[in-house]
Amino acid sequence: MAPILLNSMGNEHSDYIQSDVSKTGGVCEESSSGQHGRGHPFVCVGGSPNRMRSFAQFIHEQLELPGNAADIRDICEGTDRYSMYKVGPVLSVSHGMGVPSISIMLHELIKLLYHARCRDVIIFRIGTSGGVGLPAGTVVITDKAVDSFFRPQFEQVVLGKVIIRSTELDEDVAQELLQYSSELPDIPSVIGNTMCTHDFYEGQGRLDGALCSFSTEEKLEYLRKASEAGVRNIEMESTVFAAMCRVCNLKAAVVCVTLLNRFEGDQISTPHNVLLEYQQRPQCLVAHFIKKHLGLIS
Amino acid sequence: MAPILLNSMGNEHSDYIQSDVSKTGGVCEESSSGQHGRGHPFVCVGGSPNRMRSFAQFIHEQLELPGNAADIRDICEGTDRYSMYKVGPVLSVSHGMGVPSISIMLHELIKLLYHARCRDVIIFRIGTSGGVGLPAGTVVITDKAVDSFFRPQFEQVVLGKVIIRSTELDEDVAQELLQYSSELPDIPSVIGNTMCTHDFYEGQGRLDGALCSFSTEEKLEYLRKASEAGVRNIEMESTVFAAMCRVCNLKAAVVCVTLLNRFEGDQISTPHNVLLEYQQRPQCLVAHFIKKHLGLIS
Repeated sequence: MAPILLNSMGNEHSDYIQSDVSKTGGVCEESSSGQHGRGHPFVCVGGSPNRMRSFAQFIHEQLELPGNAADIRDICEGTDRYSMYKVGPVLSVSHGMGVPSISIMLHELIKLLYHARCRDVIIFRIGTSGGVGLPAGTVVITDKAVDSFFRPQFEQVVLGKVIIRSTELDEDVAQELLQYSSELPDIPSVIGNTMCTHDFYEGQGRLDGALCSFSTEEKLEYLRKASEAGVRNIEMESTVFAAMCRVCNLKAAVVCVTLLNRFEGDQISTPHNVLLEYQQRPQCLVAHFIKKHLGLIS
Repeated sequence: MAPILLNSMGNEHSDYIQSDVSKTGGVCEESSSGQHGRGHPFVCVGGSPNRMRSFAQFIHEQLELPGNAADIRDICEGTDRYSMYKVGPVLSVSHGMGVPSISIMLHELIKLLYHARCRDVIIFRIGTSGGVGLPAGTVVITDKAVDSFFRPQFEQVVLGKVIIRSTELDEDVAQELLQYSSELPDIPSVIGNTMCTHDFYEGQGRLDGALCSFSTEEKLEYLRKASEAGVRNIEMESTVFAAMCRVCNLKAAVVCVTLLNRFEGDQISTPHNVLLEYQQRPQCLVAHFIKKHLGLIS
């Protein structure tokens, strides 16, 4: 029950993930001294357990690791809170939907990385989102994660008091991802702000939830204001992801594909196979980043 | 894309679930004219997909329905967002962790109930929680769902504006549940307030998360204040559950067992088999309620 990071909250960056590389195996050892040469451990998180399993299998193939990708086992199969797969120097973890769900996973993941003595971790959230003025299928690499009021901050309640945390992400990783996207075919990508809401329907201005008290024009007005604030897509986890990674000194990026342009509607009419291809775009981009960093491609 | 409940937000209770009973089969027909005689359709929701599958099988046995309980199929198996099982007049649905996750499910569930023309629905959230001054294993039937500041309200952001909704639950259902708990052996139960937080660690005063900036004494002081405000347990979904059900005129109850007394610690040391028995207590109580209403027991 000992606290891991007592008194860290006043620091912009703690020394949390700064210990020596572990001698005990696992994601950190393999990344620093294993077959792939010196490099970072990578963590990729996303909402859906099935998608993060697919991503683990995809990374297994991309890194040309030995063994059968289909045999990858869920490290957390004893619980249905989330799934976790370890593939060489990459952890693939699901986090469910929304800020509270991902925050539980991040607390436990960050403790795990600490005890495994990981350092120089780069963590990616790969996901889906609603686009704001972008064609469906565009990959948005997040500049700032902003709240429903377009502020680049996350409000964390601690013992009944509100604490404000910055949601800035790593600029270098974002620029590098944008650069790599131009090296890949069919991954149209932009850097922009990502709005994180606590509700999928009323909070994102959808007209098709069980509750709706606003008009189409009011919805569009809100989306226009978001667009003017630099918001290019909307999802439900980025602010707490950015805030926690920043406080814990993890380099972090958010890479989400848009499944529709919210100016044009609320529901997705794109065929299933096209949506599946869209969902692979953030995966392909992040896999490309990892292969570059492992020296597998130049 | 047509809104279901346009302009309903100003009403304390809408007529949302007031249509005639469906002639088209499903949960509503079976409850009103089927083998169990006239009664309500019941919906039970809980965080874990595995637990809600177990609950569906348990209800199948309790209602002595034909067929094999092991053959129950997940109606939503095409997605991993949540699981849903239909057992006679009872729907058992998982909702993941936290307010945003359950709110997505509730929007879609309420639309489903509307289109199925269900009326007089009673909906229960059955779950686990941290106890505030109660021995582990106590079932808390929620009086008011309160936020981290002990207010009986839920703040919903709609198009960037904060709207306050009441989190009052159905008093009669709560009293009835308390009455029934006394008829069952080994289900110690109380009625009290339930605090809903958006974070499991800092938000609930846990000392064992990746981040912690407060002392044991400050934690205990917060729990004492919660206790003085009538809070008997802490979980992560009750406020939005109460608020949405109230606006949509669904009779709702929250029934959560405590897994530990938070004054005594943050982590659970109780043996696994004891915890499993605790988790069955809300299920047993709600099953008893349903059997009473179906006239299966007197």
